[in-house]
Amino acid sequence: MTASGIDVMVVGSIGIDTIETPFARQESILGGSASFACAGASLFAPVGMVGVVGGDFPEAYEDVYRRFNIDLSGLEREPQGQTFRWSGVYKNNMDERETLSTELNVFADFSPKIPDVYRQAPFVFLANIGPQLQAHVLDQVGPSDFVVMDTMDLWINIQNEELLKVIERVDLLTLNESEARHLSGAHFLPLAAKKLLSLGPRYVLIKKGEHGSMLFSREGVFVLPAYPLDDVQDPTGAGDAFAGGFIGALASMGSVTEDHLRTAMLYGSVVASFAVEAFGLDRLKTLTRDEIETRAEQYQRMVQIPVLV
Amino acid sequence: MTASGIDVMVVGSIGIDTIETPFARQESILGGSASFACAGASLFAPVGMVGVVGGDFPEAYEDVYRRFNIDLSGLEREPQGQTFRWSGVYKNNMDERETLSTELNVFADFSPKIPDVYRQAPFVFLANIGPQLQAHVLDQVGPSDFVVMDTMDLWINIQNEELLKVIERVDLLTLNESEARHLSGAHFLPLAAKKLLSLGPRYVLIKKGEHGSMLFSREGVFVLPAYPLDDVQDPTGAGDAFAGGFIGALASMGSVTEDHLRTAMLYGSVVASFAVEAFGLDRLKTLTRDEIETRAEQYQRMVQIPVLV
Repeated sequence: MTASGIDVMVVGSIGIDTIETPFARQESILGGSASFACAGASLFAPVGMVGVVGGDFPEAYEDVYRRFNIDLSGLEREPQGQTFRWSGVYKNNMDERETLSTELNVFADFSPKIPDVYRQAPFVFLANIGPQLQAHVLDQVGPSDFVVMDTMDLWINIQNEELLKVIERVDLLTLNESEARHLSGAHFLPLAAKKLLSLGPRYVLIKKGEHGSMLFSREGVFVLPAYPLDDVQDPTGAGDAFAGGFIGALASMGSVTEDHLRTAMLYGSVVASFAVEAFGLDRLKTLTRDEIETRAEQYQRMVQIPVLV
Repeated sequence: MTASGIDVMVVGSIGIDTIETPFARQESILGGSASFACAGASLFAPVGMVGVVGGDFPEAYEDVYRRFNIDLSGLEREPQGQTFRWSGVYKNNMDERETLSTELNVFADFSPKIPDVYRQAPFVFLANIGPQLQAHVLDQVGPSDFVVMDTMDLWINIQNEELLKVIERVDLLTLNESEARHLSGAHFLPLAAKKLLSLGPRYVLIKKGEHGSMLFSREGVFVLPAYPLDDVQDPTGAGDAFAGGFIGALASMGSVTEDHLRTAMLYGSVVASFAVEAFGLDRLKTLTRDEIETRAEQYQRMVQIPVLV
């Protein structure tokens, strides 16, 4: 643990979500990339959150953060504004997602201010926010051990140049399969990853949802299938819970080695597998370290290949 | 090896394919489920083929089989008839396949006759043919060590009852992701597999193409990501090459244990990864055991998870 006590800093969105699936609907629940990532990371290491909420943000939701022991020194409150809101509907066995509405609200003018106590955090996760904001965060922090960034199609389309500039500055770029193809212009993932690595980061981590994840570096590739699930209640935030669990587990191991990266992906995937079992943060809220370890061991047995003779 | 010398018997279709991809087109090349499965299996164990061809079947294609050391005692020739023909086109980075034409020809009246020398083959692969034909094959053979069957949507739709009767008689049912969902009526694969296991087989092997494969039994699940490829020239027959490599490798290990099944899936996946690198059987024709082992070792490193601390 660092002097400040914050091992992982997460910057991202905080939202109030309304979500409909083929089986249920939940209104105005706590969401956003920073919420899922901080919750995931907090299961392994001390986390500080940087984000913004409006005057409508329920005190109960701050309590949820506190329950995860998330440090809130970086949580900005805009009493005159409204919190970012998103609503969406999942169809076709959760395979398809349609956004019904997005209200940026206070998030529109968000300019992340990094509290002093976070500036030396060795692990930084720039969750999906505009690349200019991600750059602005990096300008404010000291040299971190490991910076992970996420992004999305929107920024690939409308702020491509700014995006490329941030990618150059991070250690690991994470994005989903279609974004990796979109940003690289290559269809096959090993080729897409090679192109993305040439943009600067040491690692490219491609998230494939129910199909697992892949970690590429100049030295090679690690391929991890997802933990197989009997049921998914709400896929929202799974990628952020994965990234949060990943960086939290990595921080808890202290150093970035190939083995630690692989182990961290296993834990990230375990966290994501729990996250989707209930709406929003509901499952992560009650998740224990024992449950994580039990599933991690099961999972490891599921993917174990015997040594070739 | 058994007294007859045949360790694996494969029954399936033999076709002459015309294939178009976004990059190339090849006319009248050797295809069919039995061709890919026998070629894949022959890389590991002595294989006998049961299938039918017409008078138009080129001598050169029989030579291809001989080059793989495939025993052809079970190859039926109908000089008056035409060989089964299929043509299809791949679109959208090979993600989508459209069948342009199917001519059953001699395959329409095919009734597999099992040569005496195959009747004691310890490993049997019933590739994708009608369930009544699959049942007819099982009626002719002695008690095999291990019977694997494949199927397809067509039979799920039009011969469901007959299909269920064969499934009850086999050790391992293999099908692709969408077929597993279709046949079980369950979307999530662990649940789908549970329902399929309840139909009788000890194992259910779900093929997910570029996303890997999953082996389910009552005891648990093994999840294997696919070998990541930079390029795919022709995905035709990948599933059959996988199944062939799988059963061939399993036969070469002599007994069916959990470790052997996992290792066999690794080899099946390696064979499939080579198969798609060229049209038809072109890549498998020149494939050496050394190349297989080299890729299998690489692959194993790619999926290796460090022991959790």
